[in-house]
Amino acid sequence: MKIARFSTGGDPRYGIVDGDELVVLSGDPMYSGFDTTGERVPLESARLLAPVIPRSKVVCVGMNYPEHRAELAYEGPSTPLIFLKPNTAIIGPGESIQIPPVEGRIVHEGELAVVIGRIAKQVKAADYADYVFGYTIANDVSARDQMFADGQWARAKGYDTFCPIGPFIETELDPSNQEIQTYVDGEPRRAGNTADMLHKVPELIEFISGVWTLLPGDLILTGTPAGLGGFTDGSTVDITISGIGTLSNPARFRDKPAE
Amino acid sequence: MKIARFSTGGDPRYGIVDGDELVVLSGDPMYSGFDTTGERVPLESARLLAPVIPRSKVVCVGMNYPEHRAELAYEGPSTPLIFLKPNTAIIGPGESIQIPPVEGRIVHEGELAVVIGRIAKQVKAADYADYVFGYTIANDVSARDQMFADGQWARAKGYDTFCPIGPFIETELDPSNQEIQTYVDGEPRRAGNTADMLHKVPELIEFISGVWTLLPGDLILTGTPAGLGGFTDGSTVDITISGIGTLSNPARFRDKPAE
Repeated sequence: MKIARFSTGGDPRYGIVDGDELVVLSGDPMYSGFDTTGERVPLESARLLAPVIPRSKVVCVGMNYPEHRAELAYEGPSTPLIFLKPNTAIIGPGESIQIPPVEGRIVHEGELAVVIGRIAKQVKAADYADYVFGYTIANDVSARDQMFADGQWARAKGYDTFCPIGPFIETELDPSNQEIQTYVDGEPRRAGNTADMLHKVPELIEFISGVWTLLPGDLILTGTPAGLGGFTDGSTVDITISGIGTLSNPARFRDKPAE
Repeated sequence: MKIARFSTGGDPRYGIVDGDELVVLSGDPMYSGFDTTGERVPLESARLLAPVIPRSKVVCVGMNYPEHRAELAYEGPSTPLIFLKPNTAIIGPGESIQIPPVEGRIVHEGELAVVIGRIAKQVKAADYADYVFGYTIANDVSARDQMFADGQWARAKGYDTFCPIGPFIETELDPSNQEIQTYVDGEPRRAGNTADMLHKVPELIEFISGVWTLLPGDLILTGTPAGLGGFTDGSTVDITISGIGTLSNPARFRDKPAE
């Protein structure tokens, strides 16, 4: 089942994707279940929003694909490497990634994102599915040269708009075998399969929930496969994950006057 | 004016400290001002809570005192080094710091914390005071050896309970000249004065609000002065900042059975 958060002009609402329509839900399904209002909205007349706004954390997993570790010559610990993006970086499908005035490259990182559905604290890997609401697509946008200049990645990966997510949350995805493909202006860039993750979703949920309590709506971005590449003002970044769909965002300079 | 968030058994309430009493406010003063209910509560019968729960971010500033940079032989960039703790790390005065089962030292870092009062985006340093609700005391608890093992500091500084704050928010503090003193079991450890910060509060607010939008209730932890030191199960860490008061927290092993 694919869940959308959308607007037709007023407050955000939630719906289940049914072909080219949205079956409107009576509230946020994470808290109030899947009761419907009886209304249907054509998908083409709805503006899709970020499918969730984390109340607490966007947890990112770094260097979680062997080929990506190799291309960056990374020699860190064998435990999962985790870091944080702030919830203020979240944008939805179609919204612009705003490139701040920083030195060096801005790169895309297309990733499978886990949407946490229940308070998760010291969860065992075997029980992981009880804590997952669903899965969506995320772009872990990064100011690559600033990452290495700072050492800490929070700034280079935390700018407003640097965490596009969407377009939907798929509640029934198998996270262990999905294709991820990133395109810039239609040209293929990064590609991989979640089967190649070093630390897989159940292990990540055990590890991360042993560090900090995960709240409903928190996200875990599970890392990017190989294939470095940047984008700039005027580019459009598309990320496709099998079973979910395509997240598409244009990019523009932050301080560029509106046309 | 000192603001407390407190409980006398029911839901959290807010009050103004007036000698040994709390003048009870009708709501959260960050959003609904300083109207009082007419009720007074003796301070000794109130349980003080974390004075604010950030909706979005705890922003930390690393290596912001020259002597601390020197003692860690840090040679990073001259711009402020910022990183994030999650809001799930927040605890209040008197609550236990829970030490997880990690290798190496657990250290205290007593710091002046800025409480943001309004949405702050690309703020100029000269205007910083318009965006500050007040100041409190924070302990940037860190698993020191894990910081260096991971490279990224989010995990080592992000564990549940690793961000004690309080006891009050002082709305009228001058952040440019306040003594900070940390004690473990009454023995003096770190000491310093906010006058020695490399990047001072107005500059920090300009820099940080140029990266990400700060929301009301977000915190900026402005860095720790010199004086390395650890603590362990059974210790009590006290941090005193002139003009605010003393934040005191006991520590215990996370997985220790309750006595």
